[in-house]
Amino acid sequence: MPSKLDTILNPRTLAVVGASNDPEKRGYRAIATLQADKYQGRIIPINPKEKKILGLDCYPRLQDVPYEIDLALVCTPARITPDVVRQCGEKGVKGALLLAGGFSEASEEGAKLEAETAAVARQYGVRLIGPNTNGLFSARYACNAIGWFDIPRGPIAVLSNSANVALSLVTEAQNHRYIGYSTMLSVGNQADLQFHEYLEALGEDPDTKAIISYVEGFKNGRAYLEAARKVTPLKPIVMYKAGRTAEGRGAAKSHSGSLAGDYVVASGALRQAGIVLVTESHHLYPVAEALAILPPMPTRRVAVLSEGGGPITMAAEALAEKGMVLAQLTEETQKKLKAIVPNASALSNPVDAGGGTDPRAEYYGLCGRAILEDPNVDALLMVGYFGGYTTRYGESVAETENRYCVEVAEMMKQHGKAIVVQTHYARFRTNALDILRNAGVPFYRDIETAVQCLVSLADYSAAKQRLTRAAATSGGVNAQAAATAIVDGARRAGRTCLLETEARELLGSYGIEVPQTVLARTADDAANVVAKLGSGPLALKIVSKDVLHKSDAGGVKLNVAGLDAVKSAIAEITSSIERDLPQAEITGVLAAPMAAKGVEVIVGVIQDPQFGPMLMFGLGGVFVEVIRDVVFRAVPVTESDVREMFSELRYKKMLEGARGFPVVDKAALTQLILEVSTLSSAHPELVEIDLNPVIAHASGYTIADARMILADA
Amino acid sequence: MPSKLDTILNPRTLAVVGASNDPEKRGYRAIATLQADKYQGRIIPINPKEKKILGLDCYPRLQDVPYEIDLALVCTPARITPDVVRQCGEKGVKGALLLAGGFSEASEEGAKLEAETAAVARQYGVRLIGPNTNGLFSARYACNAIGWFDIPRGPIAVLSNSANVALSLVTEAQNHRYIGYSTMLSVGNQADLQFHEYLEALGEDPDTKAIISYVEGFKNGRAYLEAARKVTPLKPIVMYKAGRTAEGRGAAKSHSGSLAGDYVVASGALRQAGIVLVTESHHLYPVAEALAILPPMPTRRVAVLSEGGGPITMAAEALAEKGMVLAQLTEETQKKLKAIVPNASALSNPVDAGGGTDPRAEYYGLCGRAILEDPNVDALLMVGYFGGYTTRYGESVAETENRYCVEVAEMMKQHGKAIVVQTHYARFRTNALDILRNAGVPFYRDIETAVQCLVSLADYSAAKQRLTRAAATSGGVNAQAAATAIVDGARRAGRTCLLETEARELLGSYGIEVPQTVLARTADDAANVVAKLGSGPLALKIVSKDVLHKSDAGGVKLNVAGLDAVKSAIAEITSSIERDLPQAEITGVLAAPMAAKGVEVIVGVIQDPQFGPMLMFGLGGVFVEVIRDVVFRAVPVTESDVREMFSELRYKKMLEGARGFPVVDKAALTQLILEVSTLSSAHPELVEIDLNPVIAHASGYTIADARMILADA
Repeated sequence: MPSKLDTILNPRTLAVVGASNDPEKRGYRAIATLQADKYQGRIIPINPKEKKILGLDCYPRLQDVPYEIDLALVCTPARITPDVVRQCGEKGVKGALLLAGGFSEASEEGAKLEAETAAVARQYGVRLIGPNTNGLFSARYACNAIGWFDIPRGPIAVLSNSANVALSLVTEAQNHRYIGYSTMLSVGNQADLQFHEYLEALGEDPDTKAIISYVEGFKNGRAYLEAARKVTPLKPIVMYKAGRTAEGRGAAKSHSGSLAGDYVVASGALRQAGIVLVTESHHLYPVAEALAILPPMPTRRVAVLSEGGGPITMAAEALAEKGMVLAQLTEETQKKLKAIVPNASALSNPVDAGGGTDPRAEYYGLCGRAILEDPNVDALLMVGYFGGYTTRYGESVAETENRYCVEVAEMMKQHGKAIVVQTHYARFRTNALDILRNAGVPFYRDIETAVQCLVSLADYSAAKQRLTRAAATSGGVNAQAAATAIVDGARRAGRTCLLETEARELLGSYGIEVPQTVLARTADDAANVVAKLGSGPLALKIVSKDVLHKSDAGGVKLNVAGLDAVKSAIAEITSSIERDLPQAEITGVLAAPMAAKGVEVIVGVIQDPQFGPMLMFGLGGVFVEVIRDVVFRAVPVTESDVREMFSELRYKKMLEGARGFPVVDKAALTQLILEVSTLSSAHPELVEIDLNPVIAHASGYTIADARMILADA
Repeated sequence: MPSKLDTILNPRTLAVVGASNDPEKRGYRAIATLQADKYQGRIIPINPKEKKILGLDCYPRLQDVPYEIDLALVCTPARITPDVVRQCGEKGVKGALLLAGGFSEASEEGAKLEAETAAVARQYGVRLIGPNTNGLFSARYACNAIGWFDIPRGPIAVLSNSANVALSLVTEAQNHRYIGYSTMLSVGNQADLQFHEYLEALGEDPDTKAIISYVEGFKNGRAYLEAARKVTPLKPIVMYKAGRTAEGRGAAKSHSGSLAGDYVVASGALRQAGIVLVTESHHLYPVAEALAILPPMPTRRVAVLSEGGGPITMAAEALAEKGMVLAQLTEETQKKLKAIVPNASALSNPVDAGGGTDPRAEYYGLCGRAILEDPNVDALLMVGYFGGYTTRYGESVAETENRYCVEVAEMMKQHGKAIVVQTHYARFRTNALDILRNAGVPFYRDIETAVQCLVSLADYSAAKQRLTRAAATSGGVNAQAAATAIVDGARRAGRTCLLETEARELLGSYGIEVPQTVLARTADDAANVVAKLGSGPLALKIVSKDVLHKSDAGGVKLNVAGLDAVKSAIAEITSSIERDLPQAEITGVLAAPMAAKGVEVIVGVIQDPQFGPMLMFGLGGVFVEVIRDVVFRAVPVTESDVREMFSELRYKKMLEGARGFPVVDKAALTQLILEVSTLSSAHPELVEIDLNPVIAHASGYTIADARMILADA
């Protein structure tokens, strides 16, 4: 039983509101296109002034139509849209596709019109596509309501913030020939239906095996993540998400009015939901193709095979730079290769089966098989001119080449390992390549594109595995009451920023290890400090709701050792604050043992405007200040999420024993991150959590500073 | 008067040694190819057993030929090569192209054979191409001695470490149609002629306007840099240099036996010489085309124009990520644009002249002109479907589109500003695109490729300007004698590592500012230290030829303040060394004032196996340890080189006032780098100079540690 949205996206009865007999009008062209593309449903022109349009019976109004209507294609001008949608509602039309522009993208007035339209739609339960969209293409019933011809059909759905990007994908498929589209939709202003709703429908669409998405910004990022989490275990989503640069964010804002948001945050959230991100526009289509047709990659070990050098070097560079591993071939495999090509230039990976000038297309098959049989290999990248031997050397080698094209595809299926081919002859569309691709092996012109396909395949395989397996940590803590009491206390005191003492207590209530501290009210408490914490060295800092920048105000003293020093440090801190910030209410001076040397990291939670609470983890110090080496995941996070966060840090070697630093205790940090995630889930009122720095040691960690901000009550 | 190498590369008389009547043999196919491609010179088959080959008179031996021979194409097996080259020498043949493999790339024995061949060649003054090359193509006299058909002719020369990469470029040009090759050469083993010699010849070749190079490693990097410095002011060199990753270096080694070397070093040296580096193989050809046909870009300000959004966002992202600047359009330009397209979606850059669905190819021309007239714009990137309007909307718009294709090209010439077009219809090769490209405007399928062309154009324009202007700092110092005395002293003492005191003195002799220091022999010298340097805080460290890791051996004390503390620090350092390294000869303990807080940088000189002495500059501390944010230039460096080094640092914002750090004194650092360059030029025996850290301050810098290593005498 298809969902309502599925029926709207694949309509069997389509009313064209504003149908026309004037060939210049969209209301004429829409019908002409549907007819030309052999729409398998019923087209119902609506126009009070015409009897027939393009041979079809025309009805004056929707309510006069004697059939149920799945979708109304609305070609009328913007200003009468609310009225048209009301008529749709009265007739019980399921969805209305609003082509007109002039709504929120154009002006304040347009925004009002859009809101009015959306309100009418809600009132009647009519779902809206657009406005300001260029239409819809869906292959199931050949519904071409998008105005482009010759859209190749196939298993890829396109969901885009831009019609122009969708058109680019159409022309790409027209050149490519082998894989096309099930659905194409440019979402327009999303007055009603949004990305996540379309996504859910496409997730359930049996005709769709992969989804390409160009997104400038999400109106409801959290809902999108939820939808994506359901879809990505079933089929891949390949996305270009705008917003990597300020310039890109500016362009997105001016184009679709979208707030692209922080790319690092968005990419963390989207990856967590299993989405495959690409950053070059021309990778969208080939990567979607690869993910739609290739077997998965359990890990990232790739073998490279070529007849001749050069391209293997380029392939090795690109693979290694993108985090792939050049598979270590077994002795046995190398022996097999040597038996096949006694004079091979290189038998270890990358494998160069040639160097000569004679045609040897069969090497790709013979050596390829030996490589696929190697248990160390997850995927095979062939580079060079396989598929172009006949073009280069003539028909005498055609039979051999064609035979091995079939065989390579069979090998792939037999071993369940991905094979991708880079060939200099990709754009010649040779007979051999036709055979190869029809048998299921994709080929590419560019080495770097072929490599990106493998990278994305490995990304997607890992995400799919993780999402199938993962259940978010449940939390379930009876610490919640204690924490709530702390929060309530702060609220009663009229504060939205917890005191550090409160923040530490709250962490402690969730079982998070916090260093022992002592709060000194006056210099006389120094003895108590030393009695409890030892004589040092200690770190002392002011606790006051009114002091934001503790160091700047003279509120911090480090490496304080001995009773006298502690005493005078407390006095100095207090008097410095009293002098500089005479209004400040001073709670006391917090003493803690100086942390042992280690690596500064940061663990926190922020609120993202698109995606809500996001867990942040990264390197501290200059790494967070200058380099911003932090990664994000939507709360709650799982252990696998945390593992991926570690691996995504650019300078993760800082955690692995960089010169002068310990190998940090990842297990302890992972535990901390999961606990902070649990805490954040249980206490959404803590809108900001900032443990910075956390000093990571070879064993355990020390939370050196903790800050928490409450939402306004 | 063409050089000897020019004659060899463009031979008018070509002897084929090992010519054959057997169509399976290379000695047959070589002649057949030359004939098929209408070679305009004379082909002379050499074979003692034949009278006629392919209709040509055959000579038994070279010496029997009654003409001067420019090039011998040697198709005989490896083992007789020395003898063939001897015969070439005796006949006075200018060059020999050695096709056979089985030399140094194959075995020890082969390496001997290659050395023997090279020795014979030197003896007779015969220049060798190869061995182990697939041949030579040169367009001037249609000399196709490479065995590929249909090589498009044009102004691009290819100089490659790989025939396979060259073949890939041939197929690319065959698809592209508009620009082809003057010379193609895969250098093989470079037994005699090397990259730099070919490069020099191509630099002088009037048929060559741009050079594409794929290089795995240089045999003589220094000579290559010199040749490149002569060529790049005249014509661009676009290079893919292997070696960015360990995997790439491994593949290069196994392919051509090349030592790719350190990529960061190589890229510094090559950029300095004006070479345009690309890191994606498929950028070689389009970038070379762009540099061959486009006017230069004085700075990096680009405008983006489209009809419709999406692609403009992608273009903005790619431009900004690659360091280009989105030009700020003047009020006047925006007014002009508004007059042309009253409803334009975006008038500021990127400019979106559309949003609707009606054909408006003319907007690219009209808005394009307004944008080019803007003084803030250096280049224009058009994205979308310009060139595809007719394909999409039909013949009715053909006339308009075609007219504007011509006009866009005229605008480009008139304003001397580069225009590149990205179009979804690039692979359709429409009539409009044909007109556009023939008029001189390049078009691309991929946004990121179009952007790379502009980036490389800006890189090349800047390098050309710099190289035309630059003269290396002359040095000219009478400090040389003082420095030499220090070096001689160390050598006499049997040391190749200068003591820190010596290194500092040597720096001082070149006018480099070194902090005042005092050498204490015993704890009793503490009073002298304090008298001269004040009571601190001071840094104290051991001076001993036998202590390499000073800190590890307890040889360093920081923040030492007061006479007593200095005294005990000297004693502690000395006794720690005496205890741990009883054999160590202790010169003393060096005291210096602790440097004020600042940014740690590193300035040094290393010896690169390919490029010789290389100046290194970068960020210190964790930046050099973990992040390796350093850049290199071949010694001597100019002020413009240093400016570029600053701008190439990944985290240059560390120098620009990152939180808690000063804005550093770039002028002082520049001066220091130039002085170190001068010192290195004057003293090649200082094979390693390592000033690390240099603490950069808001005013000036402090050299905190100095290390120098001498070459073995």
